[in-house]
Amino acid sequence: MNLAPENTTLRAALDDAASIIESELDALLPLAEGEERRLVEAMRYSVLGGGKRMRGFLVIETARMFSVNITCAARVAASVEMLHAYSLVHDDLPAMDNDDLRRGKPSCHKAFDEATAILAGDALQTRAFEVLAEPDTHSDPEARCELVAALGAASGARGMAGGQMIDMVSEGQTLEPPMITRLQALKTGRLIQYSAEAGAILGRAPGPLRHLIAAYGRDLGAAFQIADDILDAEGSEATLGKTAGKDAAQGKATMVSVMGVQRARMHAGHLAQQAATYLDSFGEKADLLRALAAFTVARRS
Amino acid sequence: MNLAPENTTLRAALDDAASIIESELDALLPLAEGEERRLVEAMRYSVLGGGKRMRGFLVIETARMFSVNITCAARVAASVEMLHAYSLVHDDLPAMDNDDLRRGKPSCHKAFDEATAILAGDALQTRAFEVLAEPDTHSDPEARCELVAALGAASGARGMAGGQMIDMVSEGQTLEPPMITRLQALKTGRLIQYSAEAGAILGRAPGPLRHLIAAYGRDLGAAFQIADDILDAEGSEATLGKTAGKDAAQGKATMVSVMGVQRARMHAGHLAQQAATYLDSFGEKADLLRALAAFTVARRS
Repeated sequence: MNLAPENTTLRAALDDAASIIESELDALLPLAEGEERRLVEAMRYSVLGGGKRMRGFLVIETARMFSVNITCAARVAASVEMLHAYSLVHDDLPAMDNDDLRRGKPSCHKAFDEATAILAGDALQTRAFEVLAEPDTHSDPEARCELVAALGAASGARGMAGGQMIDMVSEGQTLEPPMITRLQALKTGRLIQYSAEAGAILGRAPGPLRHLIAAYGRDLGAAFQIADDILDAEGSEATLGKTAGKDAAQGKATMVSVMGVQRARMHAGHLAQQAATYLDSFGEKADLLRALAAFTVARRS
Repeated sequence: MNLAPENTTLRAALDDAASIIESELDALLPLAEGEERRLVEAMRYSVLGGGKRMRGFLVIETARMFSVNITCAARVAASVEMLHAYSLVHDDLPAMDNDDLRRGKPSCHKAFDEATAILAGDALQTRAFEVLAEPDTHSDPEARCELVAALGAASGARGMAGGQMIDMVSEGQTLEPPMITRLQALKTGRLIQYSAEAGAILGRAPGPLRHLIAAYGRDLGAAFQIADDILDAEGSEATLGKTAGKDAAQGKATMVSVMGVQRARMHAGHLAQQAATYLDSFGEKADLLRALAAFTVARRS
């Protein structure tokens, strides 16, 4: 397992995936002609031209492992990035985290206005589901249904939205590590796990393999979130492209706030290694996913 | 065609459908146990115990015409009511229409808070799509995919959300009748048309029949919205269960504001009759849908 933080093969693969996803998003969100044009502009502003595309990369990479063609994988990758972008647009709203900066530019409600940001988030979520159900995504409608249902489970009240609710309710409270783990598993973990599983669903992978990929995604997601919290505590706005230090300012409970940076970093490293062990039976085909796990906890932005 | 506003058969069928939909929503939204419980409470508050269930009734009634079993139809009816409820919760937000009253009780952000209302709307939309994709909805995954894609098209940037955007952008502007027709077709019409079509999709109806039902839904939706605007202009909070007179107060362009109540009422009546003509080839099976068209323009709340 390659644990070097600078993995040029991974870097190139991430860049390739980001460029494929960008083109796909551009094609899936054509500008409207009428008065509703402003809405599509806000959607494009929020999802195009930024982000690490980690979720989309996971879709493309797991799909490749199961020999899925890139056209299908790119659509599903674009769909999960739309879903992710919707959650960021709504999380940044004044009534939620009230954040003015996202991906190095004004957040959607600052660049447009609050009503437009609410609607743009709503419409990005709609489009994410619509794209999955369309025949171009997969010739087998059973696979399309599974993707829609899995994305729904990952992002609804028992997934991302539920996690965000716990996050809001618990602001200023002291949470124990198991509760933080649960919160983060819902808030970011389940969507990352879905992204990994999506390639296996597209490839009609047998159950046991699908479960291994899901377990990898689950631990990768947990490691990713802790690494994100460490960056929030240590990073600067310039490197992050979003407001730094906001967890502490908002009194949010994170692994960093309860166990300190050093122990949190060890914990994240442990989770990333554990994620990689689920890939053992995939051999060399999973090298990029192994490298991603290592990179996730070593990254600086 | 029965144009009597008081049709007891229709009344009974509407009540039956409402009660079936209520049970289905209750089952599809079980209360969570953890800290995310507040979110599910807000979702249930927003979608249970209220509303005419016109969209859900359309699903159930068109499904019956195509011999779909009620278990499938009820799930799809509950799904469209969740989608509709999400749009109301977000439309009522301070940054949107800023409305404190809905279905005779405080709107979601008044009963809970703004962040919870944003998340509850988000999660209701998610659940609407998730339910459609689940195997219990239909044995044929192709039908489930078609439902998801059709709901996406009706509610996204080129449907309901797009219409809401035009509505916000045009506030205080004078719109011509064709533009108002387009705005309302997007904002409310497409979801009502989808509700009618959903039964035909569930019943795997041949294309020509599906198009007739869609045309009925389109004109019914247009008639419904004009009738709604007349009620807003003439009704009271007590009968409507929501704030009355708000279109005029917010400077919203409606058919009533550009052509007056009397001409708007004639126009709605004409659309309702036109809707009914699309049902000719269905014979007696479509009696309730004919009665619904008549009732839509004759109702008082």
